[in-house]
Amino acid sequence: MKFIDLRSDTVTVPTQAMKDAMYNAEVGDDVYGDDPTVNELEAFAAKLVGKEAALFVPSGTFGNQLAIMTHCRRGDEVIVGDDSHIVIHEVGASAVIAGVQLRTLRSNKGALDPVEVDAKIRGTDIHFPETGLICLENAHSLGTVISLENMRSIYAVGKNHTIPVHLDGARLFNAAAALGVNAKEITRYCDTVNFCLSKGLCAPIGSILAGTKEFIARARKGRKLMGGGLRQAGFLAAAGLVALKEMVGRISEDHANAKYLAEELSKIPSIRVNLEDVHINMVFFKAIETDKDLDRLVQEFYNRGIKINPPEDGEFRFVTNYWISKSDIDFAINTLKELL
Amino acid sequence: MKFIDLRSDTVTVPTQAMKDAMYNAEVGDDVYGDDPTVNELEAFAAKLVGKEAALFVPSGTFGNQLAIMTHCRRGDEVIVGDDSHIVIHEVGASAVIAGVQLRTLRSNKGALDPVEVDAKIRGTDIHFPETGLICLENAHSLGTVISLENMRSIYAVGKNHTIPVHLDGARLFNAAAALGVNAKEITRYCDTVNFCLSKGLCAPIGSILAGTKEFIARARKGRKLMGGGLRQAGFLAAAGLVALKEMVGRISEDHANAKYLAEELSKIPSIRVNLEDVHINMVFFKAIETDKDLDRLVQEFYNRGIKINPPEDGEFRFVTNYWISKSDIDFAINTLKELL
Amino acid sequence: MKFIDLRSDTVTVPTQAMKDAMYNAEVGDDVYGDDPTVNELEAFAAKLVGKEAALFVPSGTFGNQLAIMTHCRRGDEVIVGDDSHIVIHEVGASAVIAGVQLRTLRSNKGALDPVEVDAKIRGTDIHFPETGLICLENAHSLGTVISLENMRSIYAVGKNHTIPVHLDGARLFNAAAALGVNAKEITRYCDTVNFCLSKGLCAPIGSILAGTKEFIARARKGRKLMGGGLRQAGFLAAAGLVALKEMVGRISEDHANAKYLAEELSKIPSIRVNLEDVHINMVFFKAIETDKDLDRLVQEFYNRGIKINPPEDGEFRFVTNYWISKSDIDFAINTLKELL
Amino acid sequence: MKFIDLRSDTVTVPTQAMKDAMYNAEVGDDVYGDDPTVNELEAFAAKLVGKEAALFVPSGTFGNQLAIMTHCRRGDEVIVGDDSHIVIHEVGASAVIAGVQLRTLRSNKGALDPVEVDAKIRGTDIHFPETGLICLENAHSLGTVISLENMRSIYAVGKNHTIPVHLDGARLFNAAAALGVNAKEITRYCDTVNFCLSKGLCAPIGSILAGTKEFIARARKGRKLMGGGLRQAGFLAAAGLVALKEMVGRISEDHANAKYLAEELSKIPSIRVNLEDVHINMVFFKAIETDKDLDRLVQEFYNRGIKINPPEDGEFRFVTNYWISKSDIDFAINTLKELL
Repeated sequence: MKFIDLRSDTVTVPTQAMKDAMYNAEVGDDVYGDDPTVNELEAFAAKLVGKEAALFVPSGTFGNQLAIMTHCRRGDEVIVGDDSHIVIHEVGASAVIAGVQLRTLRSNKGALDPVEVDAKIRGTDIHFPETGLICLENAHSLGTVISLENMRSIYAVGKNHTIPVHLDGARLFNAAAALGVNAKEITRYCDTVNFCLSKGLCAPIGSILAGTKEFIARARKGRKLMGGGLRQAGFLAAAGLVALKEMVGRISEDHANAKYLAEELSKIPSIRVNLEDVHINMVFFKAIETDKDLDRLVQEFYNRGIKINPPEDGEFRFVTNYWISKSDIDFAINTLKELL
Repeated sequence: MKFIDLRSDTVTVPTQAMKDAMYNAEVGDDVYGDDPTVNELEAFAAKLVGKEAALFVPSGTFGNQLAIMTHCRRGDEVIVGDDSHIVIHEVGASAVIAGVQLRTLRSNKGALDPVEVDAKIRGTDIHFPETGLICLENAHSLGTVISLENMRSIYAVGKNHTIPVHLDGARLFNAAAALGVNAKEITRYCDTVNFCLSKGLCAPIGSILAGTKEFIARARKGRKLMGGGLRQAGFLAAAGLVALKEMVGRISEDHANAKYLAEELSKIPSIRVNLEDVHINMVFFKAIETDKDLDRLVQEFYNRGIKINPPEDGEFRFVTNYWISKSDIDFAINTLKELL
Repeated sequence: MKFIDLRSDTVTVPTQAMKDAMYNAEVGDDVYGDDPTVNELEAFAAKLVGKEAALFVPSGTFGNQLAIMTHCRRGDEVIVGDDSHIVIHEVGASAVIAGVQLRTLRSNKGALDPVEVDAKIRGTDIHFPETGLICLENAHSLGTVISLENMRSIYAVGKNHTIPVHLDGARLFNAAAALGVNAKEITRYCDTVNFCLSKGLCAPIGSILAGTKEFIARARKGRKLMGGGLRQAGFLAAAGLVALKEMVGRISEDHANAKYLAEELSKIPSIRVNLEDVHINMVFFKAIETDKDLDRLVQEFYNRGIKINPPEDGEFRFVTNYWISKSDIDFAINTLKELL
Repeated sequence: MKFIDLRSDTVTVPTQAMKDAMYNAEVGDDVYGDDPTVNELEAFAAKLVGKEAALFVPSGTFGNQLAIMTHCRRGDEVIVGDDSHIVIHEVGASAVIAGVQLRTLRSNKGALDPVEVDAKIRGTDIHFPETGLICLENAHSLGTVISLENMRSIYAVGKNHTIPVHLDGARLFNAAAALGVNAKEITRYCDTVNFCLSKGLCAPIGSILAGTKEFIARARKGRKLMGGGLRQAGFLAAAGLVALKEMVGRISEDHANAKYLAEELSKIPSIRVNLEDVHINMVFFKAIETDKDLDRLVQEFYNRGIKINPPEDGEFRFVTNYWISKSDIDFAINTLKELL
C-alpha cells in the first residue's frame, strides 16, 4: 500500500535521479579528503549560498550543534528564539557539547526583535558570560518565514558588536522560494548557515554547514570530534548534488499545494486554520466543535492510507512534499471531512 | 573616612559579635568532617529551613551551581526565570559545570506563572531533553518578593511531574521578613534551598545549601569537585552562626529603612520610584528631567562620603543594610536633592 | 589509474553487491523508526554479536563516544588503554561530550593487565571520581589481537565491581578471524560493543553499537543529541547487511595477505618487521640502514600507483583489504625493494 | 585532650599571630575589588613567586582546576603525571569543568620524563586534540621533590611547542626548602603556579594562583563562574599574609622532624621505610612480619592521643607539621614500638 505521508517532509525518499546518481557515484575516503563527490558537493553548496567553504554533515542537528561549538568558547551565551529548533528539538545538545548557555528571546512567528537582541548582548561585567553567537532560523520550523529586513537588522546588530550570526536554514530553500529571492539574498545576513539536503529536497541523508574557509577548517575537526567524519560519503553527496541542482527550483510547488490545502481546510466549518501563516509547505490547523477523539483520528487516517502525526495541544500539522500530489491533498481533505 | 555604602548588601562587614566568634572559634579540618563549628552551623542551618541536612559553601553562586549539578544529569533542562540570578549573574556556569540547558520563562517581578511552568515541562519525545529541575528565587535579586501562593503552586506542579524545585534564597530571610513568616514557611515549597550568610546577615563569606540527607551527601562530593572543600572553615562558620542567631531577627529594620528611603525619594519631583515594589532592602528609582550626567553623579556622591553604583539603563539601585542608619539615609536623600 | 591503496582499510569502496543492495533498498524515516532496512540491520547485527539490541551510528568514533556518554554520568572515570583509539584518535571527545576522565593504563600490544585494571577501580573517597566504565579494544588499532582469556579476566573484574565493559570492536571481525572464533565468543566478555561496517567489511559508512535493550533505548536518544539521527538511512544499512552477511567470512584472506606481505618484507635485509605481531590485516615495519628520505618515498610509491601513508616515528604501516590482491602485494614488495 | 595529629598537614590550625591578624584585618567586598587585605596578599604572593599577578582562591583543587580552565579550550589535552593530585584527588573535575582530556604519563616519584613529555605533545592531525597544557607537581603529594633540572627540561619542551606549564605547588615552599632554593627558582620553570596557604603554612583556608596579568584577569572571571568570588575575604587573606611572611622560613623544621621520624622508624626491625624518599614532611612506611590488624592500630593510636590515617595498600603515611614537636614524634615512635 502506498501511503500519503503528511507527517513531515523528513519522510521524503529520494528521486530516481538521486538513486541513479548514488549508484554511479565516484567515492573515496572523505576523512582523507579523497571523495571527489563530497568535494564537488561542498564546493557547489558553498557557492550556492555565497560562502567561501562548506562541509557535509550527517544531519541538521549535527550542523547546528557543530556551528555552535565552532563559533563559541565554553561558557559563552547564545541568543536564540525560544521556539527555535535549537532550543526545542535538539535534546539540549548545546549545553552538553558546546557548553554554552542559551539566552532565549520570545519570537514572533520565528522573528526576533532586533532591539531586544541588541539589549540582550552582554556588556563587560564579572558576573556576565560573553555573548558568542546569535542564532536565527529561516524558514522557521513552525512553518513561517522571516523577512529579509528582520534578518538584515539583526545581522547589523551582530556586526556592530562583532558577534557572528548563524542561520539554521534547515529549510533555507523553502524560505527563499517563499520570499521569491535567491538563497544568497538570505544568507548574506548570516556568517554561517546550515541547510538540509533531505526534507523538501528529498536527499536521503545529510546537511551542509557553510561559512568562511577558516571556520569550515575548524568545523571539519569538530565534525570528527562529534563522530561525523564519514568514509565513502560520496554516495550521500551524489544525492545531495541532485537535490541542490534539480529540487531547489521546484520547491514552490509544495508551497502551492500547502496553500491549496489550507484554503480548502478553511472552508470546513469545524476547522480553524490561519491562512496568512502558511508560508511554506506546512499547514497548522485545529478541529473544533467535534466530539471526535483526535488521537483516534490518526489511526482512522492510517486505515485509509494517510499518515499524519497526532495533534500537539489540539493542533494538527500537515506537511506537503515532492511525493504529495494535488490529488493526494484532495483525498486527504475529503477524508478529513468524512471523519470529522 | 567612613563611607555610607549603598551599592549592595554584599558590602557588609561582620559585626563585633561575629569577629569575636571567629576569634574564639574551635576549628578542625572540614574535609575530614573534623570542624565542630562547621558541623554545628550545618545542623543549625538545616533545622532553620526545615531540611534534613545542610552544607556550607563558599558563595551563593557556588551553592546554586552545586544544586543544579547535584539535581541534574548532563543534558537535562532547567526551568528558571529569565531575569533570575542564575541566568543573568552566574557567568553562564550551569552550561559549563552541570551541562544543562536553561529554559527561561518571562518572570513577573520574579514570579513565574505556574501554568507556564507546567506547560514547559517536557514530555517524552526523542527530540526533547528531560526537565530536571525548576529554579525559583525569593527574594528576587531585583528586590521583590514572591508570594507563598505562587511558590506553593509551582511546587505542586513540580511534585506532579516528580521534578524537584530549587530555591535560590540568597536573601531568603529578607523574603521571610517581608512576608511576615518563618523561613520554613517558604522553604516547605522547595526541595533544596541555597541562602547566603553574607549580604543582609553580615557574615563575611559563605552560603548554605540545604536539602535531604541523601542530596547533601552527593552535594558534599560535588563541592569537592568544584574546589569548595575547605579546611578550617570553622572561622567562617562561627560568623555564620552569629548571622543566623542574631541577625535574622533584625533584617526588617533594613526593610523599614528602604521603605522610608523610597517614600522620601517619591516626594522629590524629578524622581520616579515604584513604592509598591519596595519589598525588602532595595530601592530602584530613576531621575528624570535632570540635565545631570548620571554617571558623574556617582563621583559626586563619593566625594560626599556615599558609595553608589552607576545607574543601569538610567535606573539607580540603593540598598540598605545593617551598617546604614536612618540618619545615613537622611544624609543620602539630602545629598541627592542637592546634587540633582 | 587504479591505485593499490595500502594506507588503511577505511579506504575500501563497496562491493558490487553492496551497490546493488543500496540501489534496491527499501527505506523510510529512521527517526520515526520507519526504515525497514535499518530495522533489519539492527536486528541482524544484535544477533550476530549476541546482544539484545543494536543501533546504527554514523562512525566508529560516534559509536564509542555514544557508548561512553550512555554508560557514564558526568564526572565518571573510564579505564582505557593509553594507546587505544579512544585516547589517541577521537579528538579528546570523551571529555567534551560525556564529561568523563580517562584513566589510561599502559597496554601490552593492546592488552590491559587485569590486576592493574582491578587496582585502578576507585574506592569510596571524597577525592575520587567513580569508575563508570572499562573500555577494551579488539582488534587493537595497532594491529594486534587480545586473547579471550585477557578479555574474560577483565570482564570478571568489571562484573565484580558492577562496572560495565565496552568493547571498541571497530575491527571485531578481524579479531574473531584471528582468534578463529565466532564474534560472539569475544562479545560475551563485554556489555556493549561498537563495530564498523566499513573498514575491512567494505560498507561505505556506518557502525553498530550493541547492548541491552534498555541501553540501546537510551543510546538512541543520545544519538539524536549528538546529531546522528539520520533519515533514510536504509541505503547505508543495505550495504551494512551485505557487509555482515557476505564479507565477514572472507576477512581472513586479508590476514593471509598481510602475513605473506610481512614474511616477504622480513626477507629484505634493511627492513625490520615483527612477524609475531601481524595478527590481522596490518603490517608495521621500519626501514633501516637506508639513506632514503622516507617521506619522499611516499611520493615515489604514488608515482608507481601505490598509496601509502608517511611513516610515523620512522615506522610504516601497510594495510591489506578486500581490494588488495596477492599480486598487488607482490608489486608493492618489488616496488619497495627497488626504491630502498 | 590535645591530639598529636599525624594524618596530614591539612589539619593545621592557624597560629596565634594569624588569629590576631584575622581579628584585626581590614576588609571589603572583594568582588568589587574593595578588600585591601586581599589586594595586599595577592600583590605579595605574586612577587614571592616572581609572577606578574596573583589571585586568592578557596582551595588547592580550585586553583588547579581554574588554571586548567583558564589555560585550555574545551577539548584540549593536558599532559600530567598519572599519580598527580589532579588525576587522583580532584574528583575528575577537569573533564567536567574545563572539558579537557588528561594524557597521563607514568611518573618517577613525581618526575615526568622530558623526552616522553615531548613525544606526547600532539602534532597536527584531524584525529588529535591539541595539547593545551603541561601540569607538574612539586613537591609531589607522595612526598617527593622534583629536581630543578627536571622542571627546567620540561619547561623548555613546553616553550619549544608554545605550550604553557602549570605547577601544582600545593606544597611549593616545602619543595623550595628541600631543594634549598628560593621559591622563585622553582616557579621560573612554569607559566602559572598554584600554592596553598594552608597545609604546612597553617593558614586556615585558601590558595594562590599566580601568572601573567592577562592570565589572572581571565582567571578572576573564571573564579566567579566556579563560585569562588568571595566577599570579605580579607580575614582569610590576613592569615595568608602571616603564612607567607612568617611560616615559609620555618618549614624545614617539619622536614627535619620527618627525617628524624623516618630514621627512628628504620631502626625498628618490622618497619620498612625508604629513607631516601623522605624529602619533605611526609614519611611513608610499611609494617611487616606483624600479626597486628593494621586497621585496628588506628584506633589504638587514637586511644593514646595520636591521630593517624588507616594504611593504604598496607602503607602508612605520617605527616609532620608546625604543631608536631620532636617530643611528639618520640611519643609516636614509642607508641608504635609498643603496639606492633
